[in-house]
Amino acid sequence: MKKWIAAITGLVAGGLASTVIFADFDRNTNQANTNTNASNVASYAERTYVPFGEHDEYYLFASGGHSGQMFIYGVPSMRRIRTIPVFSPDSATGYGYDKHTKELMGGYTWGDLHHPALSETDGDYDGKYLFATDVANNRAAVLDLKTFTTMDILKVPNTGGPHCAAFVTPNTEYLFLPTRFAVPLGFEYAPLDEYNEKYRGVMSAVTFNEDKKKLELAYQVALPPWSFDLSDAGKKGSEGWSVMTTYNTEEATTEMEINASQKDRDYIVLYNWKELEKMVADGQYDMVGDVKMIFPEKHKGGIFLVPTAKSPHGVDVTPDGTRFIASGKLAPAMTVFSFEKAFKAIEDKKFSGEFNGIPVLDYESVMEREVNPENALGPLHSQFDEKGHCYTTMFISSEIVKWDPSSGEVLDRIPVQYSPGHLAAAEGDTVSPDGKYLVSLNKIAKDTYLGVGPSHPESMQLIDLSGDKMELIYSAPVDPEPHYAQMVKADKLSTDKIYEKDEKRPNSIWNQKDAGITRNGNTVEVRGVAMRSKFIFDGAAERKDVIHVKEGDKVVIHLTNIDLDQDITHGFGINSYDLNMEVQPGQTNTMEFIADKAGTYPLYCTNFCSALHQEMNGYLLVEPKG
Amino acid sequence: MKKWIAAITGLVAGGLASTVIFADFDRNTNQANTNTNASNVASYAERTYVPFGEHDEYYLFASGGHSGQMFIYGVPSMRRIRTIPVFSPDSATGYGYDKHTKELMGGYTWGDLHHPALSETDGDYDGKYLFATDVANNRAAVLDLKTFTTMDILKVPNTGGPHCAAFVTPNTEYLFLPTRFAVPLGFEYAPLDEYNEKYRGVMSAVTFNEDKKKLELAYQVALPPWSFDLSDAGKKGSEGWSVMTTYNTEEATTEMEINASQKDRDYIVLYNWKELEKMVADGQYDMVGDVKMIFPEKHKGGIFLVPTAKSPHGVDVTPDGTRFIASGKLAPAMTVFSFEKAFKAIEDKKFSGEFNGIPVLDYESVMEREVNPENALGPLHSQFDEKGHCYTTMFISSEIVKWDPSSGEVLDRIPVQYSPGHLAAAEGDTVSPDGKYLVSLNKIAKDTYLGVGPSHPESMQLIDLSGDKMELIYSAPVDPEPHYAQMVKADKLSTDKIYEKDEKRPNSIWNQKDAGITRNGNTVEVRGVAMRSKFIFDGAAERKDVIHVKEGDKVVIHLTNIDLDQDITHGFGINSYDLNMEVQPGQTNTMEFIADKAGTYPLYCTNFCSALHQEMNGYLLVEPKG
Repeated sequence: MKKWIAAITGLVAGGLASTVIFADFDRNTNQANTNTNASNVASYAERTYVPFGEHDEYYLFASGGHSGQMFIYGVPSMRRIRTIPVFSPDSATGYGYDKHTKELMGGYTWGDLHHPALSETDGDYDGKYLFATDVANNRAAVLDLKTFTTMDILKVPNTGGPHCAAFVTPNTEYLFLPTRFAVPLGFEYAPLDEYNEKYRGVMSAVTFNEDKKKLELAYQVALPPWSFDLSDAGKKGSEGWSVMTTYNTEEATTEMEINASQKDRDYIVLYNWKELEKMVADGQYDMVGDVKMIFPEKHKGGIFLVPTAKSPHGVDVTPDGTRFIASGKLAPAMTVFSFEKAFKAIEDKKFSGEFNGIPVLDYESVMEREVNPENALGPLHSQFDEKGHCYTTMFISSEIVKWDPSSGEVLDRIPVQYSPGHLAAAEGDTVSPDGKYLVSLNKIAKDTYLGVGPSHPESMQLIDLSGDKMELIYSAPVDPEPHYAQMVKADKLSTDKIYEKDEKRPNSIWNQKDAGITRNGNTVEVRGVAMRSKFIFDGAAERKDVIHVKEGDKVVIHLTNIDLDQDITHGFGINSYDLNMEVQPGQTNTMEFIADKAGTYPLYCTNFCSALHQEMNGYLLVEPKG
Repeated sequence: MKKWIAAITGLVAGGLASTVIFADFDRNTNQANTNTNASNVASYAERTYVPFGEHDEYYLFASGGHSGQMFIYGVPSMRRIRTIPVFSPDSATGYGYDKHTKELMGGYTWGDLHHPALSETDGDYDGKYLFATDVANNRAAVLDLKTFTTMDILKVPNTGGPHCAAFVTPNTEYLFLPTRFAVPLGFEYAPLDEYNEKYRGVMSAVTFNEDKKKLELAYQVALPPWSFDLSDAGKKGSEGWSVMTTYNTEEATTEMEINASQKDRDYIVLYNWKELEKMVADGQYDMVGDVKMIFPEKHKGGIFLVPTAKSPHGVDVTPDGTRFIASGKLAPAMTVFSFEKAFKAIEDKKFSGEFNGIPVLDYESVMEREVNPENALGPLHSQFDEKGHCYTTMFISSEIVKWDPSSGEVLDRIPVQYSPGHLAAAEGDTVSPDGKYLVSLNKIAKDTYLGVGPSHPESMQLIDLSGDKMELIYSAPVDPEPHYAQMVKADKLSTDKIYEKDEKRPNSIWNQKDAGITRNGNTVEVRGVAMRSKFIFDGAAERKDVIHVKEGDKVVIHLTNIDLDQDITHGFGINSYDLNMEVQPGQTNTMEFIADKAGTYPLYCTNFCSALHQEMNGYLLVEPKG
């Protein structure tokens, strides 16, 4: 036990972090022994092998961090089925290269995708949409799970690095985006000496307009200049409420690794979004630019602070909606809070202080119990199973602890390799988790996999929850860098086979005879088709697969893939011109460029489409000026 | 049998491609049944499961096609361990964002990475370097297998889409890059009516200067305006020779899927690179721009054409160096040619014609046998095992055929799902293949995996070669789009643990006290360190983790990661400023930008590094102009 206390002290001092993370714990060594036991290996192998002809039971949607992408895995095989580009370009799919997706990206070249959130109906994943946030350039995104593509991206003002992400409310009314880094409103210039007066931690309430397929900013809340981290929405009896962790309530402005860890208590923000919605409807806000912003010091009500152990990371609402559980890497324990007690404390005005007009609730009046498994260190994030059991990652002691939030009893513990951040249980953020599977998202893999140089992959480990004891049955290497994941039953998703033929779609052409090239001044507009195994740009020309323009022309190419068969995706690349896009079956897509280099440039299908894919090419001829 | 003849006719007519590819063959259905047999499943599962504490036996390096990346897998687990960005940017690693890698990319935003090739010593993979080509923007790259990073990229002139790639000679003397699309020299403008006179299929001979760590263009060869495809280098007795397939010897300029498949025979280019090297040394070339170019019609010798069945794709030299085997999706058979017979035919001048001064060898004089397994359709590419057996993908009938090139005997056949392009056997392109494992790179997965919308993943399938009969033991989904792969024994690679501390490295700082910010006119230069868990930009400042500049300044940030521990990679992102880079342990990296937006911008570590990673942040303050 003393060893761990020393470790925590070291962490806080910022000096021993490496020692702690890379220490080989006895328990980890035991795990390795267990895993390599022959009969266990055979059993683990069988339980994770999905034979040809069968499908994985769950989709796992894992955030890709600073890759800007979303990674999709099958569970239990842990095979990565798909990468969906969201905030960063991806030439494999032409994302960020064609006109539409380039506009979606809004001029940014990368993003830091944290924390995906599946859309919910009645508190359950409905398999329709997936939301995500960008810590780097302050955006929110929505993905269409019929096509596995990014549908809309919203730039969010005033919020500096929406880290914790888009936890959705039980009927996807809102996604709340708290700020990770306090900034002055509008990111205005303000010296750090004016931190307390001018900086704010702005939370954004974003809605998804399903008809318009657009994200919209409903309102914002100007919280104190703290860092805000994870959040979760109330469920059932606590529906309408949300919880969110804070750190740096010290309001430190430098050397955060020491200065933001000074106070023994930070807070959980407990807020009633139905009341905030009503306040906005009643005009209880100020306009900041074109944004409705609630300033709690002025527009009172609906927001409270619950003291909790220092620097909490996760705060998770139990599936029955009765409790919320806070944990944090510097905290000695998981803390179970009661919604019922919180509501009573609010009613009784059991306040112990105030920040920016936000009342602080009395800790003892809201706290139900502190749970501290022996030698378990760094509780970070919790998920749940169908029996109401809770699974919490221990970031420092590198293990998962299974426990009962209603009694505090510790039921089981299993080592993971190493430093688990988040974890995702099957349907684990819903009102009705499935149990069965749990994935631990580990920050450090050490030498788990073949060496790939000074920087290693991260690691996700699959844990079987079906027995009384957890069993770690698979280790999957992961590209940098997963932060959070959600796991949904595969049969909840219904993907499109093709983009439906729509003759009214602007610039679409459905018959090769209709393909044509028109000139208007210096603009050349091509309406063409891609089909197995050719491009047709001009149905009347001798060479139908050639685009002939003049140097300096603006060239606009609309291409419709008229192969209405599943998976017959065509690519369209122009050699030397650094151009590429994709047209999925039935899709119309547009490429725009200036033909600023005279010459002869091959164009070709970049995405395998057919037996004669290799022969699907033509030329762009750019005639020199005068 | 008639069914297949009809299918081939359909293919050539361009009309039935889809029917053929998507037909459900009886054999495939049987395979599904075989795979789901319980005892087989258990055995397959065990053979592909690599328990925690053990490592995969082989690395598989698979080209990522238009993703511009290289995908690294472990075999037999088929887990993707790493993605290495090469021709396209990758915000996960800051590739294409920091100064050095941005310059490497040469202004291009994507690439189409085909055909990786491992460096060789004495015809065997030596585990040192990996080469690759870019079909989109005509580049070659070399990757360092100590760090798993891209080391150099060379822009190759005159060669239009070096598809087939960088097959290296037995001691990595050369990588030869044939042109996929004929273009006029210098990509000059020339109407397609002048195709025969002005277009050329230029092959590039590239060398790797190991001392300078640079790729260099040695010379080029101006071949006829055909498309050139795959190639392989002679080995042992045939060392010094190379072979390369051609298609579109029809010199068609439009509707290639029909017009480039008219003739019954295309050619294999058989050339002696030692002789070409000597010709260049003797001044037997013309200068084209600053490139030495051999024009075969003028500079005679060293190059011959071998007739082969139409539109060949792969041509593969047997490990003993005695034979080369051609196959092509429209060919009725694999054709085995004898180097010995070819050398004799050359000596005897058994020529049947000439193209651009290149003699055509008499087919019968070089051909040893044609091998046509019953109902097998679309032979594409061959690999070999330790017993000299050959494995050939059948693109149309979706299977792998095992056969003996010295007798023509067909030994085994196994269905794959579906449309296999290439295949990679363990050490399969060397003088001493291992047998053991074979990976089939399939272009179409159909419904093998969970649905992900109208566009599906590709698929790689692992085949166990250890018994007499091939066994398909694993199916792995793959991001778009693998073209070729090479598999190397893991113990041949020795990766670096860190970048060594080098105090003489320009702009590196190894002590936080030495960190500092200097101004020179409007340029602000920062020499800072990243360490667990903070940035230090100015060792003497009150707030060491803040960069304060003026609007319009050019900002240059050199950052050294002074954590000399394996896997302690830091990221460095600036919020709202769309900036990110990575510093691996011991590495120095540089970010440059114009501070054109006044305001307050958080900066933070984007790559998980330590327990207090979340607290590793500071601010960029950009003071507004006057």
